[in-house]
Amino acid sequence: MSIITLTTDFGLKDHFVGALKGKILSEYREATIVDISHHVDLFNVSEASYIIGAAYSSFPQGTVHLIGVDCELTKECNHVAMLWNGHYFICADNGILSILTQKIVPEKIVQINIHNRLPEGSSDTDVFVTVACHLAKGGLLNVIGKEITEIKEINELQAVVAADNKSIKGYVVYIDHFGNCVTNISKRMVKEVAKGRDFEVAFSNKNIKSINTGYSYFAAKERTMKDYEGEKLAIFNEAGFLEIAIYRSNPLTVGTAKTLLGLKFRDVVNVVFRAP
Amino acid sequence: MSIITLTTDFGLKDHFVGALKGKILSEYREATIVDISHHVDLFNVSEASYIIGAAYSSFPQGTVHLIGVDCELTKECNHVAMLWNGHYFICADNGILSILTQKIVPEKIVQINIHNRLPEGSSDTDVFVTVACHLAKGGLLNVIGKEITEIKEINELQAVVAADNKSIKGYVVYIDHFGNCVTNISKRMVKEVAKGRDFEVAFSNKNIKSINTGYSYFAAKERTMKDYEGEKLAIFNEAGFLEIAIYRSNPLTVGTAKTLLGLKFRDVVNVVFRAP
Amino acid sequence: MSIITLTTDFGLKDHFVGALKGKILSEYREATIVDISHHVDLFNVSEASYIIGAAYSSFPQGTVHLIGVDCELTKECNHVAMLWNGHYFICADNGILSILTQKIVPEKIVQINIHNRLPEGSSDTDVFVTVACHLAKGGLLNVIGKEITEIKEINELQAVVAADNKSIKGYVVYIDHFGNCVTNISKRMVKEVAKGRDFEVAFSNKNIKSINTGYSYFAAKERTMKDYEGEKLAIFNEAGFLEIAIYRSNPLTVGTAKTLLGLKFRDVVNVVFRAP
Repeated sequence: MSIITLTTDFGLKDHFVGALKGKILSEYREATIVDISHHVDLFNVSEASYIIGAAYSSFPQGTVHLIGVDCELTKECNHVAMLWNGHYFICADNGILSILTQKIVPEKIVQINIHNRLPEGSSDTDVFVTVACHLAKGGLLNVIGKEITEIKEINELQAVVAADNKSIKGYVVYIDHFGNCVTNISKRMVKEVAKGRDFEVAFSNKNIKSINTGYSYFAAKERTMKDYEGEKLAIFNEAGFLEIAIYRSNPLTVGTAKTLLGLKFRDVVNVVFRAP
Repeated sequence: MSIITLTTDFGLKDHFVGALKGKILSEYREATIVDISHHVDLFNVSEASYIIGAAYSSFPQGTVHLIGVDCELTKECNHVAMLWNGHYFICADNGILSILTQKIVPEKIVQINIHNRLPEGSSDTDVFVTVACHLAKGGLLNVIGKEITEIKEINELQAVVAADNKSIKGYVVYIDHFGNCVTNISKRMVKEVAKGRDFEVAFSNKNIKSINTGYSYFAAKERTMKDYEGEKLAIFNEAGFLEIAIYRSNPLTVGTAKTLLGLKFRDVVNVVFRAP
Repeated sequence: MSIITLTTDFGLKDHFVGALKGKILSEYREATIVDISHHVDLFNVSEASYIIGAAYSSFPQGTVHLIGVDCELTKECNHVAMLWNGHYFICADNGILSILTQKIVPEKIVQINIHNRLPEGSSDTDVFVTVACHLAKGGLLNVIGKEITEIKEINELQAVVAADNKSIKGYVVYIDHFGNCVTNISKRMVKEVAKGRDFEVAFSNKNIKSINTGYSYFAAKERTMKDYEGEKLAIFNEAGFLEIAIYRSNPLTVGTAKTLLGLKFRDVVNVVFRAP
């Protein structure tokens, strides 16, 4: 039996998340439910996509990921369920899944069509709950929807390789709890373009000469870790994306990449390759 | 075996909620524990009552709801446990249960009397934990308390039907994560008074001509959903209460019902019926 | 099989906590995972130590406590696992455990040495997850590390008994969700030094003449509880430490010990004994 994860913009004060879990447990008493986040910025499909994309692969194959962000069924927005990389995703067709699945084609997508089978007055979350429990119990996608091949694309800024192959231009797409600024430049992309060349990271009027392999793994070895506090660094984070950070950042004390370097959502970050 | 839910004003930073769960699991290792909210405004029995009232019915019959808000035993405030609508509630007798149970008489209420049976130095939460585990395992109310018929009433503003039957006057009783303003006017009350008449919703100097059946379900069909962003709307929410909202509200960007319409806790909202 | 608890500074918005749980469930599908806190101030080992110290003993013996605060492996900081008071703790050797274990010697501490056995690219949390699952399944400390006898000590302000034995000087070490100010003066210390003498609590230019046995348990019985709202009080909290509080505090309305009494982290609080 599979795990069900929850990613929503519901917040944790109201009854929403508790009620959602109650509905799941009412339908599937043995469910294992794991919160990924309930603090997605309201209706922010880009943020939802980053968070679920960074989390899903830590779960076992077959896990069912319920995404309750901007999920009301409208004439412009269907409910969909998708099998991708061995995981199930349940979501409104609002762009979250298309951002998530860039370059890797889903195994199967269905447009959920069980709405008429539910009791009158059922809500959008009731639909998601029914589908999540069905899939977590091992049910098939075909039973709860009809297969489709296209999902809604939305215009997201993409990381782009320069025509001369000398740099990659990307953007800050997420700022985390530590104030670290995550870009949409993936480790894989950098590796493919680098072909062995060294590179530095440049943004606004600053640059970082090398990539840390861990937040604490600075190249110079003669200093103590304490000496590095407040130092800027670049790292490929666990989700596989280039990130600008401050060593031992703290918004309340020493500051963070966001506050000290002035980086904001959508700001440009470049990877600049050196001549071989 | 029943689920145990938790609704408290403990917050999530301190050790309180973790310790509470540890105590439950120490007494009942197989317990299924679900958080409803730990962000109830401190000692706010009105808010606690709204949240648990909106959540409880999503859980299976027999669920045990532990409410840790203003729960210290004092000379003025006993600990009580109640069976109501097929669910158990454990609470201090501070008004939370009387707000919750308006108009629907509880099946049974007991004043908890096990305090002397617990080890010396036991806290109020220890008492609640013992009672919760007892009930979740299928134990009887009579074993942990003596039956009572009265619980503490507190003065809460009530929604009132005008003498001429032409309107209902209610109040904002809760503002949620989306900034939506929930009133104490129930769908059932409106339906009973309306007797088929149309109505509009009026507050301060604004009004809303019709009720959306979903946040996205506006009457006019010629516009795209995007056109409606920032538009005010009225809806009966999932908990069954009239709510004033802004379509796709966001406190950080477009604003919310709270910020855009200036609605506050306790503000008046009227339902005004039209002549048939 | 043991419970695994989590105490981190990861926050709840990002994917970190969800991914951590996913990794645990991938390795140990039946794990019972309980959050203690994910809102520890960033890299704050003192706060982490207070929170886990206040929570751990509410869990059953054998529980495994994973502490993800300042946990990157560096040349100056090893990963350690400890058996203490019948509970397991997994942590970086950054001072958290030495603050926690003052005066009570751990049964066993090992320096974790499984890093080379994990797949390449494994993170610090991967190491902690592997150790946590191993211990929760009943595995031995010796299998995942080599025994050590010393852990890192850090300079923490200690509560000190005056040379004349007439007072104890302590410090505010934690301020909780209610704005209550917790000191590092333990009930046990006061009892040992008091030898039956009465005492009062003094800080800045204020004092409190007696200790409440509960937040609501004021000595004077002629007043109603309502009369006490906003009154300052001293109490030994559930974790066993002297705490300064405001009765029914609320940062949004009546204020708290922090806001009303001006107490801050590290401020001095004295226990002053009276002549017998």
